Amino acid sequence: MYDQKAYEWGMNKCIIREIAEYGNAQKAIVGEENVYDFTIGNPSMPTPAEVDQTIRDILSDTPSLAIHSYTSAAGDYSARKAIAEDLNHRFSAGVRPEDLMLTCGAAPALTAILGGLAVENSEVILIAPFFTEYVPYVEGVGARVKIVGPDLPDFQIPMAQLEEAITERTVAVLVNSPNNPSGVVYTKETLEKLAALLTEKGKQFGHPIYIVADEPYRELVYGGAEATFIPNVYPNTIVCYSYSKSLSLPGERLGYVYVPSQAADSREIYAAISGAARAKGHICAPSLWQRVISRCAHLRPDLESYDKNRSLLYESLKAMGYEMPKPEGAFYLFIKAPGGDALAFAQRAMEENLLLVPGDDFGCPGYLRVCYCVKYETIERSLPIFKQLIENRA
Amino acid sequence: MYDQKAYEWGMNKCIIREIAEYGNAQKAIVGEENVYDFTIGNPSMPTPAEVDQTIRDILSDTPSLAIHSYTSAAGDYSARKAIAEDLNHRFSAGVRPEDLMLTCGAAPALTAILGGLAVENSEVILIAPFFTEYVPYVEGVGARVKIVGPDLPDFQIPMAQLEEAITERTVAVLVNSPNNPSGVVYTKETLEKLAALLTEKGKQFGHPIYIVADEPYRELVYGGAEATFIPNVYPNTIVCYSYSKSLSLPGERLGYVYVPSQAADSREIYAAISGAARAKGHICAPSLWQRVISRCAHLRPDLESYDKNRSLLYESLKAMGYEMPKPEGAFYLFIKAPGGDALAFAQRAMEENLLLVPGDDFGCPGYLRVCYCVKYETIERSLPIFKQLIENRA
Repeated sequence: MYDQKAYEWGMNKCIIREIAEYGNAQKAIVGEENVYDFTIGNPSMPTPAEVDQTIRDILSDTPSLAIHSYTSAAGDYSARKAIAEDLNHRFSAGVRPEDLMLTCGAAPALTAILGGLAVENSEVILIAPFFTEYVPYVEGVGARVKIVGPDLPDFQIPMAQLEEAITERTVAVLVNSPNNPSGVVYTKETLEKLAALLTEKGKQFGHPIYIVADEPYRELVYGGAEATFIPNVYPNTIVCYSYSKSLSLPGERLGYVYVPSQAADSREIYAAISGAARAKGHICAPSLWQRVISRCAHLRPDLESYDKNRSLLYESLKAMGYEMPKPEGAFYLFIKAPGGDALAFAQRAMEENLLLVPGDDFGCPGYLRVCYCVKYETIERSLPIFKQLIENRA
Repeated sequence: MYDQKAYEWGMNKCIIREIAEYGNAQKAIVGEENVYDFTIGNPSMPTPAEVDQTIRDILSDTPSLAIHSYTSAAGDYSARKAIAEDLNHRFSAGVRPEDLMLTCGAAPALTAILGGLAVENSEVILIAPFFTEYVPYVEGVGARVKIVGPDLPDFQIPMAQLEEAITERTVAVLVNSPNNPSGVVYTKETLEKLAALLTEKGKQFGHPIYIVADEPYRELVYGGAEATFIPNVYPNTIVCYSYSKSLSLPGERLGYVYVPSQAADSREIYAAISGAARAKGHICAPSLWQRVISRCAHLRPDLESYDKNRSLLYESLKAMGYEMPKPEGAFYLFIKAPGGDALAFAQRAMEENLLLVPGDDFGCPGYLRVCYCVKYETIERSLPIFKQLIENRA
């Protein structure tokens, strides 16, 4: 006797991990340098040296018992203060420490937000393409997933389709910009249109429709693009964030929820999110990492290396004839499958030890995700294979 | 619009934290040494020095990128191997790395287990007194809480009452030994009776009834008492564990789920628990701490200091006339309220800056929990107040 849905979530592994595992097996056979693994969004740049040094400093200057003790469930006040100051410095956002709740990464932040917002028969709208795990997160709190998009060829937000999808049961629209998997950054214009639509629909249905902004890639933007801080455009935005990408700490599980004080029912929503987190077993975020962030919240990733990878791959693939939206953020390209069948193309690529993830599970068949958080040489050496694949598109 | 139940969980703070917060406010007024705070189970002994040294070692001998990367969702294999070896060394338990799943502490481990086991209309039985948070954990996965006990005056398990409470909807009995809040260790005899009862009831209803063993205090036993490793008595036991108490790392959030290979439907249950964890936003346990545990799984806490506290407090209170079960584990005494009214007694104690937690929220009115993970001098200096309170029981 066990929960069938949970069993399926446990058995149907993420396709990304499956292809990556195939890649690891291949590496053992043909050599690591002969497998071009563009599957997993694990940062390829290490965390800034200051982060590891800060751990050493904390071990020296703080009593061990204090370092490793429980903090409040919301998180150490000084860590929340440092995060608020950093956000306010960059976005003039009016963030207060009491608007923040530190979490074990963005994923539990997101499920806590969804658990706090979802009432019976709630619907949450995803905009394709979207991060595959959003589906179990939404269904896991008992809400229904509705999908709109993609908005081809620019991968912004298809407003007319979204307008049709919103009903009185819609509690939130999940927004991820810079986007995984498309690498696209939603323009300020897009977000302003979204804000206007949700404001209008909120009035029509008599309750706020929140944007849930999943922002782990907020700091990873290139070539002068800007990732708009969404609460500044639409106050009913609840943000979840992670230091996984921006500080290259994916395994360490530190992130936060931010509920703006100007959001509708701000304190009640904050309480409901805290309560949902509590029932899921949230006690506090890892305490050593809270202390690190209280000293390192202002640090930024090594964008130059990612940007160098991006330019090489984007310019080369474009020259070969691949089509894709302009990648301005995160560390992904989203290419249209030559020939139209992404699964078949991924299969052919796999035979050449070039590993790409078909877009189907991101809600976007016919496209493939290419993670460029890899070694520069891996990209260089993979280019002849990309060329061969598009020339023999069959 | 927000989830009302989640809102209540967020607003109705744990009474333990509320009294502790009052204590912190009082400390600012009358001085820290004049507040006798026996409320929170935060370890008072620091983690062994080897743990902090191991962090330094890892930072020196392992590439930064590898330290902080995602592990598999189940956890780094070498960490799981070290845990399995330690358990097998002590309990001859036949644990395999693939039976373990590392989690962000025991609480998310427990909610993942409950989420994996609970089907529609499931019931989970708690044995009073129990850790207060079990109620939101069970209700959070949509199951119903049924409470049996307490089994006075020894605080073992009331078998006849338990037998009556089990129905065809019972999926699990939650067992916590050494027990929070009673400090009692369930005897091997108690657990064997429990195993026999659940085996019989499982046959009667045609499906296994699991023991969910919440074991953060497993290593904290005194005076020759032994905490039985429950899977050795009843194979349908799913264990959740945390290093919060045994390595004094409560803030760092490292624990695990153990599904014995000999449990009924072992692999399906493991998959369902993994799936439930995935939908709650579990990605992996903090990676630096996984690496620490792969080197430190064999370390044990400083039991001598806790035992010294325990002896002083237990012997002194007994001599004054307080009644309580024999405290053989964890770091709690559970005293019967002189006069019978625990809330009134806690109130009178609070006026003397002596902070105790009434047993009501633990499912056991008329008793009070006393955490002895405090400074030895705090206990010494509190004794006259305990004496005065029982003498003027009014």
